[in-house]
Amino acid sequence: MIKAGIIGSTGYAGGELVRILTGHKDVEIKWFGSRSYIDKKYASVYQNMFQIVDAVCMDDNMEELAEQVDVIFTATPQGLCASLVNEEILSKVKIIDLSADFRIKDVATYEKWYGITHPSPQFIEEAVYGLCEVNREQIKKARLIANPGCYTTCSILTAWPLAKEGLIDMDTLVIDAKSGTSGAGRGAKVQNLFCEVNENMKAYGVGTHRHTPEIEEQLGYAAGREVTLSFTPHLVPMNRGILATEYAKLTRPVSWEEVRAVYEKYYKEETFIRLLDKGVFPETKWVEGSNYVDIGFHIDERTGRMIMLGAIDNLVKGAAGQAVQNMNLVFGLPEDEGLKLVPMFP
Amino acid sequence: MIKAGIIGSTGYAGGELVRILTGHKDVEIKWFGSRSYIDKKYASVYQNMFQIVDAVCMDDNMEELAEQVDVIFTATPQGLCASLVNEEILSKVKIIDLSADFRIKDVATYEKWYGITHPSPQFIEEAVYGLCEVNREQIKKARLIANPGCYTTCSILTAWPLAKEGLIDMDTLVIDAKSGTSGAGRGAKVQNLFCEVNENMKAYGVGTHRHTPEIEEQLGYAAGREVTLSFTPHLVPMNRGILATEYAKLTRPVSWEEVRAVYEKYYKEETFIRLLDKGVFPETKWVEGSNYVDIGFHIDERTGRMIMLGAIDNLVKGAAGQAVQNMNLVFGLPEDEGLKLVPMFP
Amino acid sequence: MIKAGIIGSTGYAGGELVRILTGHKDVEIKWFGSRSYIDKKYASVYQNMFQIVDAVCMDDNMEELAEQVDVIFTATPQGLCASLVNEEILSKVKIIDLSADFRIKDVATYEKWYGITHPSPQFIEEAVYGLCEVNREQIKKARLIANPGCYTTCSILTAWPLAKEGLIDMDTLVIDAKSGTSGAGRGAKVQNLFCEVNENMKAYGVGTHRHTPEIEEQLGYAAGREVTLSFTPHLVPMNRGILATEYAKLTRPVSWEEVRAVYEKYYKEETFIRLLDKGVFPETKWVEGSNYVDIGFHIDERTGRMIMLGAIDNLVKGAAGQAVQNMNLVFGLPEDEGLKLVPMFP
Amino acid sequence: MIKAGIIGSTGYAGGELVRILTGHKDVEIKWFGSRSYIDKKYASVYQNMFQIVDAVCMDDNMEELAEQVDVIFTATPQGLCASLVNEEILSKVKIIDLSADFRIKDVATYEKWYGITHPSPQFIEEAVYGLCEVNREQIKKARLIANPGCYTTCSILTAWPLAKEGLIDMDTLVIDAKSGTSGAGRGAKVQNLFCEVNENMKAYGVGTHRHTPEIEEQLGYAAGREVTLSFTPHLVPMNRGILATEYAKLTRPVSWEEVRAVYEKYYKEETFIRLLDKGVFPETKWVEGSNYVDIGFHIDERTGRMIMLGAIDNLVKGAAGQAVQNMNLVFGLPEDEGLKLVPMFP
Repeated sequence: MIKAGIIGSTGYAGGELVRILTGHKDVEIKWFGSRSYIDKKYASVYQNMFQIVDAVCMDDNMEELAEQVDVIFTATPQGLCASLVNEEILSKVKIIDLSADFRIKDVATYEKWYGITHPSPQFIEEAVYGLCEVNREQIKKARLIANPGCYTTCSILTAWPLAKEGLIDMDTLVIDAKSGTSGAGRGAKVQNLFCEVNENMKAYGVGTHRHTPEIEEQLGYAAGREVTLSFTPHLVPMNRGILATEYAKLTRPVSWEEVRAVYEKYYKEETFIRLLDKGVFPETKWVEGSNYVDIGFHIDERTGRMIMLGAIDNLVKGAAGQAVQNMNLVFGLPEDEGLKLVPMFP
Repeated sequence: MIKAGIIGSTGYAGGELVRILTGHKDVEIKWFGSRSYIDKKYASVYQNMFQIVDAVCMDDNMEELAEQVDVIFTATPQGLCASLVNEEILSKVKIIDLSADFRIKDVATYEKWYGITHPSPQFIEEAVYGLCEVNREQIKKARLIANPGCYTTCSILTAWPLAKEGLIDMDTLVIDAKSGTSGAGRGAKVQNLFCEVNENMKAYGVGTHRHTPEIEEQLGYAAGREVTLSFTPHLVPMNRGILATEYAKLTRPVSWEEVRAVYEKYYKEETFIRLLDKGVFPETKWVEGSNYVDIGFHIDERTGRMIMLGAIDNLVKGAAGQAVQNMNLVFGLPEDEGLKLVPMFP
Repeated sequence: MIKAGIIGSTGYAGGELVRILTGHKDVEIKWFGSRSYIDKKYASVYQNMFQIVDAVCMDDNMEELAEQVDVIFTATPQGLCASLVNEEILSKVKIIDLSADFRIKDVATYEKWYGITHPSPQFIEEAVYGLCEVNREQIKKARLIANPGCYTTCSILTAWPLAKEGLIDMDTLVIDAKSGTSGAGRGAKVQNLFCEVNENMKAYGVGTHRHTPEIEEQLGYAAGREVTLSFTPHLVPMNRGILATEYAKLTRPVSWEEVRAVYEKYYKEETFIRLLDKGVFPETKWVEGSNYVDIGFHIDERTGRMIMLGAIDNLVKGAAGQAVQNMNLVFGLPEDEGLKLVPMFP
Repeated sequence: MIKAGIIGSTGYAGGELVRILTGHKDVEIKWFGSRSYIDKKYASVYQNMFQIVDAVCMDDNMEELAEQVDVIFTATPQGLCASLVNEEILSKVKIIDLSADFRIKDVATYEKWYGITHPSPQFIEEAVYGLCEVNREQIKKARLIANPGCYTTCSILTAWPLAKEGLIDMDTLVIDAKSGTSGAGRGAKVQNLFCEVNENMKAYGVGTHRHTPEIEEQLGYAAGREVTLSFTPHLVPMNRGILATEYAKLTRPVSWEEVRAVYEKYYKEETFIRLLDKGVFPETKWVEGSNYVDIGFHIDERTGRMIMLGAIDNLVKGAAGQAVQNMNLVFGLPEDEGLKLVPMFP
């Protein structure tokens, strides 16, 4: 039985980790960390867990945690994990960090986009970017995993094979992404109130969203060169789901079947990536509650553009589900253990 | 391995049966019946099941089905199951009928409220009303189970112990129920379009809803006398969930603890009923996707009334989940097999 | 031109007052009070008012305001209006208070339900309860108007004629009300976040909601006796709208036409009350954005109960619209001036 | 008093026309056409209009209508207006067609994208494309006005000044548009049911949506050359609103102020276009119920791209509001008569 601790268990991603791990036969959650609710019953914060979770919330003590558990998930704002981690802790326990702290290899880029000084840049190099379908082998050997962002998981996986195979002109790549509101977190802010979000659609972080450099870095690895792209996130009046619509010029004429073959080259064996049939495009509802990434594409001959569409559940494949997938890899379990989640419709 | 067939597998309740049975380790679905989509791939109707269900939709042939499977679920409009069932079929296969055909013991009452002639009244007597927490032992021996309605499951279970113990005056019982829109089915009707339901709240079937006699009959058994009550359903702009708010005069002064003890007398050992703490009242989101019934109550001393509140997911405990719970009972499996569904939040 | 000042102009009710008064040909808003946004442009808080309102937000100085305007609207939490008002101010300016401070005649009742000491009980007697359809003549002569609550406006008007004419047994009255989320205000609270409200339905304030004594007092005037009733509010995942479903035993057998005649006796000439046709029941969407109250009813012969249903837009007839209706009465304008708002659908 | 007739008055755009014209002081609706509801009371179809509209629905007889009214609005599917119109009718009455029949000057393009034979191509040339801010003078003299589509109004106006002034490279233009569900019409289709749309986000008509050639034609006029662009519409779980996010390479380095000056050159005097402040981007809720177009932009120096964002209410500026604006121009009324609609929030 793997013993797990969660720092930040009462945010939406933390809550989803609890939901998923509760159904994972090889894991026991030993520590429900939550600075805001210390000593409160976890199930009084998330009443859906009533009679399922009996624990009370604990503080953020990572040193203590490292003694008690085999893996720590940090589902906290940027800066916290990096400020708590140290060599001693890493020698005792695996860390899967759901924040951005160890995702970006260039510390200057991190500090510029996030506007904070990185508290422990010495661990950036060893940290493995936990995009399982891309970095599977390194993940298996990692002590510290940087779990990818929600927008980035969806944006990267949707374009990865075409970037890798040079089918699209990376200088023309535009990613227009739409997210449910759970991505904004559980903080009490006016802009996330029901009446502000419901019946409303807006872009935000236009030209400045922090997931941009993360997408650029990873797609840069795929393309084998530096990539600069446009990424615009939008807030949608729904709880869960990310849809990414991606546009790029084709580098040469291709048929649908050729493109499909390229996607299959990378994803054919992937449990969690579903390549949709011709003429079918992803809808966020089709993946809700599951760890799937659904991908469809259209070759627009009129404009010479490839239009790629990807959908995930931002809390599952975009956060907690991928974190568990990483944990499974690290501990040598079947990759889909605890993740055979059937999407819920409607 | 239990072989199951579903007639009406492409309605919302049918789809939920597929979702739940797909995760049930002892069941294999052999027949995806759907008159409207014969020969179409099931996953093209419910794209969430892509790469999970590979079958194509079949017709409604119950005779043929009875040869091939161990249990048939009929998730169809009233009248269909009753018109297909016969003694030969019942001798070969268990039937769990999600329609209203065999729920009401008095055929005249059925015919009055449903406005149709009952096609096979000879099976009404043997049919067992599949409210598992109430009729567990009879269910285990049944061939034909009348799976309760969604409003009724919630309404009955919320009041049952108090009716049984005579704590409330049944002549004063008022049930005001609110349901998500999946309860209205997947038929293409203007009144169920997104723009008609969203940002709207309404009552319907005021004084005439067909679940009324079903609630009255069952609560009548509990009370040991005929019950006539007011039941008003309302349509809420959400996909899933039923909340029932029930009002009745107390028959005598009682403390919160006494009432709690009465609830515990009947539900303490029930896996799927969660009695909430004092001052906590159910919310539909806390049970979403799960088979739970959450119940809370308030003794209103000012008015001498008991206010009881219950919440379920209408597609799970209100339909498919309860159907699987019934199946588990019939086949001698653990009652919660395939039903350890953790509610999803948000 | 009437000069108006609004204290609390950046709450949802305050914002709705601005929307309505902006379209009122005889009114000019001179003061946009908002403690939280002093010196900020009003249109930067409510960007819908961009290029419509050019003013900046001001503080709560009622003394100063009384010098500058003819009417003050206080759209603030309970206690504030009562703490600011004094004889000098009332001698200079009309006050329409959207809070609960002057709604309840018995100060002890107010203090018990609201849990605060009333800061100026000396004005309670002269304050007129601004339910226009009931207290029209007193309103015309008032200096201080207690604008009714949202739930109360809907609950009272729906039952008023039947209470007045003794058709229903007031001891059996149960009011089950459902409200959109704007009724919860614009404060940044976790429970009002989009992800907490969306896809969720719950009751709150069960047996303890502060609108209860207000409804009881007013329906008590109608019935000519003290009334104690059950009132349960529910939160619905929509922005606007209140639906009240009200149940009571009939005191004698009546026909639909007789009841209709009773409603018409009181409401036939009312511009803002629409008595629906037989078999038609109100939906909140039908009144959205308007000052209408839609009322329907059903005589349930099986149970001997009357089921009354009423719907309003909680921000219009339940707050800002009724406040403007009161203002029109006080200043001798046509009662519907600025209120000919056609409901928006969808 | 202008007498108006509406063909297709019970669709969502038709209903919005009724809402707006009801508040227009110079117009009287004489004919509520609706093939589906002939002889039914209009207010029984749209109960929000109860006691506001007393008329019954009529058939589609345009010849008869031309005798009775001054202006006919056709809010019907493509093909209907073009099949009814003829020279005699046009000699008697103004026609404002909300369908696509006369929007595209090249009949072959129309027939290719719409898949039908144009029934009256002889009127295409004289028809004026009713984008008021662009074609104001021609509209004033027109007999037949092609009211622009919802996506197109938003997409075109957002980019128009930059296309006209050559600031953006039209070959790189990508328009990613998001629409509320009322844009899909009131037809009873499974895909538009509440449970299918709610909590879901999807693209549709990828590479094939019929508004594409309309946008290309109009932006081609602005650019002075043929334009081919990518346009992808998305369905959002909300009733109203369109948000267009548009991306294009800058043709030369520009400052925010220069771009703003270009927008002001074309829109400074426009009542219905609001150019947002620096750093502010449009949200659909800010224009809901109004005829406004809100526009914001961001110069993305990293990528050399211009990101333009525009928002409208699809039923107002995207349909009925613009139709009334056209009518005002044709009849010499103030352009904003009946259109001083303040956006509703929340």
